[in-house]
Amino acid sequence: MSKANGAHANGSASPSSVSTSSVSPSAALEALKSRLADIANLEQAASVLSWDQETQMPVGAAGARAEQLTTLAKLIHQHVTDAGLSELLNASKTPDGASGSSELSDDEALLEVTERLISSTCKLPDTFVETWTRAVNASHHAWIDARQNDDFAAFAPHLETMVDLSRRRADYLGYDDHPYDALHDLYERDSSTAILKTVFAQLRDDTKVLLSHIVSSATTASADLLHQPFTEESQETFALDMAARFGYDLNRGRLDRAVHPFATSFSNNDVRITTRYDPNFLGSALFGVLHESGHAMYEQGIADRLQRTPLAAGASLGIHESQSRLWENLVGRSKAFWEGAYGLLQETFPKQLADVSLDDFYQAINVVSPSLIRVEADEVTYNLHIMVRFELELELIEGKLAVKDLPEAWNAKYQDYLGITPPNNTRGCLQDIHWSAGSFGYFPTYSLGNLMSVQLFNAAKTAHPEIDDDIRNLRFERLLTWLRDNVHAHGSKYPPQELLERATGERLDAAPYVHYLNQKYADLYGFTPQI
Amino acid sequence: MSKANGAHANGSASPSSVSTSSVSPSAALEALKSRLADIANLEQAASVLSWDQETQMPVGAAGARAEQLTTLAKLIHQHVTDAGLSELLNASKTPDGASGSSELSDDEALLEVTERLISSTCKLPDTFVETWTRAVNASHHAWIDARQNDDFAAFAPHLETMVDLSRRRADYLGYDDHPYDALHDLYERDSSTAILKTVFAQLRDDTKVLLSHIVSSATTASADLLHQPFTEESQETFALDMAARFGYDLNRGRLDRAVHPFATSFSNNDVRITTRYDPNFLGSALFGVLHESGHAMYEQGIADRLQRTPLAAGASLGIHESQSRLWENLVGRSKAFWEGAYGLLQETFPKQLADVSLDDFYQAINVVSPSLIRVEADEVTYNLHIMVRFELELELIEGKLAVKDLPEAWNAKYQDYLGITPPNNTRGCLQDIHWSAGSFGYFPTYSLGNLMSVQLFNAAKTAHPEIDDDIRNLRFERLLTWLRDNVHAHGSKYPPQELLERATGERLDAAPYVHYLNQKYADLYGFTPQI
Repeated sequence: MSKANGAHANGSASPSSVSTSSVSPSAALEALKSRLADIANLEQAASVLSWDQETQMPVGAAGARAEQLTTLAKLIHQHVTDAGLSELLNASKTPDGASGSSELSDDEALLEVTERLISSTCKLPDTFVETWTRAVNASHHAWIDARQNDDFAAFAPHLETMVDLSRRRADYLGYDDHPYDALHDLYERDSSTAILKTVFAQLRDDTKVLLSHIVSSATTASADLLHQPFTEESQETFALDMAARFGYDLNRGRLDRAVHPFATSFSNNDVRITTRYDPNFLGSALFGVLHESGHAMYEQGIADRLQRTPLAAGASLGIHESQSRLWENLVGRSKAFWEGAYGLLQETFPKQLADVSLDDFYQAINVVSPSLIRVEADEVTYNLHIMVRFELELELIEGKLAVKDLPEAWNAKYQDYLGITPPNNTRGCLQDIHWSAGSFGYFPTYSLGNLMSVQLFNAAKTAHPEIDDDIRNLRFERLLTWLRDNVHAHGSKYPPQELLERATGERLDAAPYVHYLNQKYADLYGFTPQI
Repeated sequence: MSKANGAHANGSASPSSVSTSSVSPSAALEALKSRLADIANLEQAASVLSWDQETQMPVGAAGARAEQLTTLAKLIHQHVTDAGLSELLNASKTPDGASGSSELSDDEALLEVTERLISSTCKLPDTFVETWTRAVNASHHAWIDARQNDDFAAFAPHLETMVDLSRRRADYLGYDDHPYDALHDLYERDSSTAILKTVFAQLRDDTKVLLSHIVSSATTASADLLHQPFTEESQETFALDMAARFGYDLNRGRLDRAVHPFATSFSNNDVRITTRYDPNFLGSALFGVLHESGHAMYEQGIADRLQRTPLAAGASLGIHESQSRLWENLVGRSKAFWEGAYGLLQETFPKQLADVSLDDFYQAINVVSPSLIRVEADEVTYNLHIMVRFELELELIEGKLAVKDLPEAWNAKYQDYLGITPPNNTRGCLQDIHWSAGSFGYFPTYSLGNLMSVQLFNAAKTAHPEIDDDIRNLRFERLLTWLRDNVHAHGSKYPPQELLERATGERLDAAPYVHYLNQKYADLYGFTPQI
């Protein structure tokens, strides 16, 4: 039988002006939530289409899919910017603007986050959004070609446009201190250029010191044993088994293949991850799946009562990354974890690993080696890749660095921070998609995620000292429950820094991460930790 | 990286009243098309979500998916019933109501079909649609339980409701002669109860005669050889290879597993099919895939210029079924096809088929055997299953048959037409989903499809007598091109009967199908054809 889409439904939540003068705040709030649910459902539908595009869609369907996504994006935009939504928002506020309690209620947080959403969307004029969308599209395609042909000059005019438009974008969005604040704020609420500069300076300098110790240590570690043939099916089975043990619920999730791995969520009951397999390298899919399962468990853990509201999302990209990095690195690359899991891995790959000791395996998955490509970087050098990008994009937005001078500046920083120079721009300043998409202010969230992962992990272990033993026994409920209660369940109710402080008692700080790295890698590379 | 749905777009095609007084017909038509494109994109998005639900979605996601689909259905309903759409439709009409040409232009057909769409949607009051949707939902769940427990009494009240609501639905939709006309018209434009009665009487009576010849023939055919272990992967590979040879373009399609197989389309560049595998029976997936590929090639063949309009759909369910049945039966169960394909099948399954002759295989896939289950019926008896349902649902809608008397009436007709009586209602009147969903008027389209498949196939062979040889050589371009040109490309531009007449020069007629069956099965069962 041929399936016609004959669903019928009706209702009156169409975007349109409403008469709110005689409506009580609670009635207005209900109406507001109904509209927000429609917006959430449209966003989830668009996410399903995007997931399908990356994992299932036949190649010939690209044009039609773009049209479908454009219509959904247009409708979402219309719903968010509809005057009726603002009116309902205002009518939902109680007269004194607070519930009387000192504790932020869900509804108060909802009004706050909704106001932020409407305001940031409405601040950008339609004509600007149109120009921006067209420019991103052109720039993205130019970047793909430029990367393929190692032709920075061909991409430079597009990057100049993206920098110019990003400055205009910042002006529209508004800022107090620095235009970069407005851009970074799109990904990390309540962060700032000033905070990043301070925290990252320490991170960068301390990491450089640590790296120099590692590079000059007598220990020579090798990841060679990870580079053997590993059948893809077994890679998948093992990685997914570990993710499921962590607590990634496969009744509400699934794993597929994608060229560029990601996690995506269509409610807390449908959170999917993707990975790619290298048949000759164990690390790619294994740690990729553990990483994405961290993102996914966050989304699966957002409280039911926040679903279909703007609060049903991660608190920020930094907090999101803290969860993926916690499970990938703090658990997944720890000695304790492999004391529990290595036997199972050896059973899965006896030919490759039966004769490899746990110590050698642990060493192999933690080799530190300055390299050119961010997404392949180890724990120690990863943040240096981010520091390069943060410092350069700040200068681009400030107008202190001209686009034409970017390759030279990039290479100089790689030489300074990592001791190596890219042989070409494809492996240099053309490697990341972010700038081509105008995503200035995004890169810092990767390092924020690293820093916060250790702060949160430490707090969980302080609350439950048994967690280290749990991990050794492949039991993760206690850790996951702590994360659920202190991070996941809240969605985006609290700004990220407040969430971090509520969970850990600390503000954002590079010291715990630097300390973690020094302890771990001094042990691995046989020197006395300095910090 | 975690994937946020950050697409931006904007535009002004929001449903809302428009000032059309000063707009030229051509400008109004452009605006109308833009709105229709949004509606088409929303429908395609909903279809992607439904496909995902049936093939990929984790079990825990059902609730969230229902919410997403409800929002999309609501928005589609709002867009279709929006006053602005009607205004644009009226403003698009040229003063004299015609282009001057005697040939229907695409735009004229578009206005006609759009008017039909708006009118049938607007005729149903919102309160009725709400009641209907709730009733279908309750009835569907009651039907699942009743079928599982063989408990017709538990389902009967729901079926009574669906009959009552269907009569009301017919009243809202309007009709001249018979309330069933209004319901059937939802699936088969320009057909009628009177036409069905006439055509089906001949089909039923002639089929009964043919069946009596087959049943009393000396030839005993058996399908046993199809009931052996066949690995699912090889079943899939072979079936998909045949579908691809037919012309199902896998760059614009894909095959997945589903409990209830279907074909679905998200534009002519993304048309997907599904099947289910029985590891101990070759027929299920093989002919299922050929059937669905027929639906899919139809959708893939709709002209580009009709995409994202209401014309980018099959002309009717009957015409759609004619395409699936043509490829499944007239090609897929023909001697000519297996003269070309049987060697390949033997190579795929040497253990099972190496010693089976082509004649025995051809006999096995064409065994005629009166049975209880419609979806498992052979070519000859299939229409008798439909006649039972058509005649009974007509009586239900006319009020001549009470729901409580349905099982008895069902069993009596099975005894009369097929010579067998169901042992219980699960294998009797509870077997199909259609009535539980209120889809009265749907069943006849299956038989219309069968009849028209032969009329169209004959016309194609008259135009190209080489087609029989083509099929023997596994070459299908000539047949597919004829179907493309005469059926597929037109989408729903022409009403089905007009499309049939343009393609074949004939009106709907049971005689060619009856003749086809008699020729084929007299040969198979060793008697002289009567008709």
